[in-house]
Order: sequence, then structure tokens, then C-alpha cells
Amino acid sequence: MPRQAASVTLLDIQRPVAEALDTVTAEIGRMIAADVPLMQEVNRHLLLMKGKLFRPTLLLLTDDACATGDPRAVSLAAIVELIHLATLVHDDSVDHSVLRRGMPTVNTLFSHQVSVIMGDYLYSRAIIELARLDDLEPIRVLARVTDAMTVGEMRQLAAYDALDFDEQQYELLCRSKTASLFAAACEVGALRAEPVQRLAARRYGDALGMAFQITDDLLDYTEGEAVTGKPSGLDLREHKVTLPLIAVLSRLSPAQRQQVEALFRQAAPDDEQVVRVVQLVEQHGGLEYARDRAAAFAAEAEAALDDLPSSSARDALRDAIVYAVERRR
Amino acid sequence: MPRQAASVTLLDIQRPVAEALDTVTAEIGRMIAADVPLMQEVNRHLLLMKGKLFRPTLLLLTDDACATGDPRAVSLAAIVELIHLATLVHDDSVDHSVLRRGMPTVNTLFSHQVSVIMGDYLYSRAIIELARLDDLEPIRVLARVTDAMTVGEMRQLAAYDALDFDEQQYELLCRSKTASLFAAACEVGALRAEPVQRLAARRYGDALGMAFQITDDLLDYTEGEAVTGKPSGLDLREHKVTLPLIAVLSRLSPAQRQQVEALFRQAAPDDEQVVRVVQLVEQHGGLEYARDRAAAFAAEAEAALDDLPSSSARDALRDAIVYAVERRR
Repeated sequence: MPRQAASVTLLDIQRPVAEALDTVTAEIGRMIAADVPLMQEVNRHLLLMKGKLFRPTLLLLTDDACATGDPRAVSLAAIVELIHLATLVHDDSVDHSVLRRGMPTVNTLFSHQVSVIMGDYLYSRAIIELARLDDLEPIRVLARVTDAMTVGEMRQLAAYDALDFDEQQYELLCRSKTASLFAAACEVGALRAEPVQRLAARRYGDALGMAFQITDDLLDYTEGEAVTGKPSGLDLREHKVTLPLIAVLSRLSPAQRQQVEALFRQAAPDDEQVVRVVQLVEQHGGLEYARDRAAAFAAEAEAALDDLPSSSARDALRDAIVYAVERRR
Repeated sequence: MPRQAASVTLLDIQRPVAEALDTVTAEIGRMIAADVPLMQEVNRHLLLMKGKLFRPTLLLLTDDACATGDPRAVSLAAIVELIHLATLVHDDSVDHSVLRRGMPTVNTLFSHQVSVIMGDYLYSRAIIELARLDDLEPIRVLARVTDAMTVGEMRQLAAYDALDFDEQQYELLCRSKTASLFAAACEVGALRAEPVQRLAARRYGDALGMAFQITDDLLDYTEGEAVTGKPSGLDLREHKVTLPLIAVLSRLSPAQRQQVEALFRQAAPDDEQVVRVVQLVEQHGGLEYARDRAAAFAAEAEAALDDLPSSSARDALRDAIVYAVERRR
């Protein structure tokens, strides 16, 4: 992938579908509207907290690239974001997360109860809207996502010893928690396209999702540096083992391994411990290894696009790969 | 309704569909099967905790009464129970309930996290199985249920002053949390029947669900009496206002009203307070009022059955009404 493309912004990528994306936000608002004041309050917060609409963007671009002119694209894009929101609300509640995208989470601002019920509400709204579209196919594709996500999360919860987590299990988790929804969003964007294009869209979304998640995990090792001079290492503090660490575990000396184990025994590891393990990961090539894996998935995503006809939407999908692996947050 | 029919047991009601019901249990097991050991453990517990399969019974009986021979009836019955299980698991987690049907809840035996994720899992399995049936109609009917349930729960959470809860709000809550799934189960059992029968099945389920829930709330005032000589009054202890109390609130003297308010101010009301309020409710006719309302809904359910052809399944549906209002637990 050409390095000079690193300057691709999300806004560039979204340009070909900018108008449709504006409608998506309104559509989400319509879909979750409720006449209970407390629900309206949560909804307002969710719409403020709303992220970059990356998944709806992918769906709309795929739809555009396949040129089938599916009139349901905007609704489907809104539904995909609804499902994403539902999983975020439940995830934050399960993880007791305090912040999301710099804003207080629903469980923090309201309560754990509100999070569980509102997550269910968002998901049931998504199903109702799907049923309105009079087509079982998107339901089939999207129901598999929630299934994969929950199984992935249960697998993670059940992991007995975090440091036993290997690369295969890590990829399985990335696939279930991130790539499955990316793949589904792209596949749903190509529902009316030729089978070969639909499959290409799905493969693209899957590989892109993997590259996106590995990059996310990498950023956790690197992102704090520019500002504070030390990495945030949030995953390490929460005892989450991701690819950079997995890549180096077998290369550590017994003494170094003990430093890692000490951190994982500590309920709240201190900064020094975190910095030390981040250094070990860096020195032993963990960051490089993860970057290479992200690049390999990026190349896979790029290759999948060859099966779609050339268009400005396809160019934007190509830029989305660059964005996924080169972004700083 | 003839009083002598009070001896109707659930087994009697289930007799016409006993064979199909056995298959439902196996079908539920198949639908929730997972290869993650922790999920298998939760699933085993859920199947042990499995209740009386009242909703699947209603679906199968309705299907039988409409005589459309829908080959999907067993799967649909299992799906309806799955949705019911999913809501129980989330409800218990939201309410921090410790016991359900005399067994520890999933949140108690495992954790809050496991409850949230497993509830999502059960629901996503239900949607996947619904999509396999190649018909949008049951999805439409059942998606509305989850929507109604979540809105009802949010409305309850948002209630600022429990004692302001009036009969209309109470009925709205019963409808959303109980009658909606009863109505959907019966409607789904009649999907292939004539519109008039489908509507009758739905009306029957709705009225039956209302009678069932009011009876549930009544039992909370009366059930402990035979065994311990004093009522359990669990709802009062948890500051839940149900019909027996709503019915008498306006009839209390200022001093009596203060006794009720004192109980609702107390984080953990003592036995004496609970017994005193139960007595007030009884003396002012609250139990009688609730019994009358349950009987009125029972009569509605009975009337709805007139639109179904005479059969042993319809007789069983009629017995189910007696069971709903006369049961002791």
C-alpha cells in the first residue's frame, strides 16, 4: 500500500456517499424514536455519541460500487449502525466502561439496568426495521453477526489464563467482534449484485475488519506516545492480551516473561509495569509483527476489490483500507 | 367460569399436545447448542430451570385448534420459549434477582456479564431460527413483542413515584411484559388460519396474558398465607405497585395512606409493615377488585375462543384460562 496515501481522511472516503450518510443519521433517529421521556434522553445521548458511521459508509460504498441501485441502502445502513450501537451499549455495560468516544457511557450516565434494556430495545428496533424491508436475506446475514459476537464474547469471558491466548484465538475473537459486522455490512450492500460481487464484498469487509481491529490493538500500544510520551496501554491494564504481546511471548527470556506475568497478576498494574511490558513488546518486534499482519489483511481486502467494477466508490473502498491501517485513533 | 374447574392442572391442558411438547424441549436444546464449554454450562442450567412451557403449549394448542397443520409449529414453539428465556435472563440481571423458579439465576450462578451476553445469544439464536423458516410473518409478530417489552420496562424504570402508578399504566405494563408474548404465541400458532381465527387467537392470548399477570400479582399478596400464615408481599418489599394496591389507594384515610407511604420510603420494609399494608389492601377490597379484573379478562379470553372451531384443543385452551386464574403459584 503506498505510504503517501496515509493522508486519507474519513471525510474523503465518505464523499461519494455524503448525501446518503446525512439521511442515515435522520433514519436512525426515526428508527429509535420512543414516547417515553427516559428513552428519549438515552436516544439523544446515543445520537450525540454516534461515531464516524464507518459501517454505514462501507455499506453505502459497496452498494454504490455494485451499482444495483438498491433503494433500501440507506435503511440498511441505519440498521447496521443500530446493531453496532446495541452491541456497544451492552459491551460497555458488561465491561463497566466509563467512557466511549470521550463521552460518558450509558451505564455511567444512566444505569446498568438502562443499558441492558436499551441495548435490547435498539436490537429489537433493528429487527422490526429489517422485517419491514420484506426480505429475509439481510436478516439472515445480520442475525449471524450477533450470534458470532456473543459466542466470541463468551469465549473471551471463559478464557482461564489470559497469557495462554494464542494468535489463532486472537484472530477468532477479532473476526467475531469486529470483522463479522464489517463483512455483513459490505455483503448487505451487495445483496442485489452478482454472487461473485457479493462474495467479494463480504471478503473485503472481513479482511478490512481484521486489519481495522489489529490496528486498534496496535494503537493501544502506541497512541499515547505523541501526547504524553508514554503509551496508554489500556488493554494491558485491563489484562487484555492482543497481537503485539502474543507475537513476542514465546521470544521472551524467563526473567522477561516473569515481568509480564507480574503485570497480569496485579489487579491495577502501575505505569512503570505497563511501560516496561510495552518496551519488551517493542524490542522483540511485537509492534512490527502486528503491523505486518494488519498489512497482510489490508492486502487481502485490496485483492477482493478486484472483483468489483472500477468506480469512484470502489476507489473510496480502497482508501478505506488505508484509513483503517494508518489512522492514529 | 365454573368454580369446579379449579382442579385443572397444566398437565391436563398439555395432554392434546404432549408429544409435540417433548420435541419442543429437544428443539430448544438443539437451537442453543454451542461449542464453548461455559456456554454449554449456562445452557444446561437454562434447560434445568426451564419452566412449564406454558407459552409453547398455547402456541401448539392454537395451531391444533386452527387445524392448519403448520409443520413449523414445534420450531415456532421452541423459538417462543427461547425469546421468553432471553427476557428472563436479562430481567433477572436487571433486577439483581437471586432465585427464579427455586433455582439460582444466571446472574447469581455465573455473573452479570454472562447474563447480558447469554440473553443476547438466546435472542440472536431465536432470530436465526426464525429466518430459517423462510417466512417474514412470525418475525414481524415476534419482533413487536421484544419492542413492547423493552418499552414497558423502560417506562417502569422511569416511573418517578411508584404510588402515582394508576390502573391504566398498570395494564399497559402487564400488556407489554406478559400479554404481548402470550398474544404473539397464540397468533403465531394461527398464522396459516383464516384472518378471523388469527385475530381470535391473538385476542385470546392477549386477554389470557392479562388475566395471568393480574393473578400473578394477586398471588404475591396471598400465596404465603397457607404455609406461613403471612403473605410473602415480595412486590411490596421491592416497592412494586400492582393492581390490589392501586385499587385501594384512593379509598384510604390519610393515616392509612401514610402507612403505605412509610413502607415505600423504607429501603427494606419490615414484616410488620408489609403485613399491615396487605391487611389494608384486603380490608378495602383490593384483592377482590383484582380478582374481578382477572375474571373480566378471563371472560374476554373465553369469548375470543368462540371464533375457533370446536375441538379438544380448543377445550384445552378454555381450561388454560381456568388454570391461569385459579392456580396457586
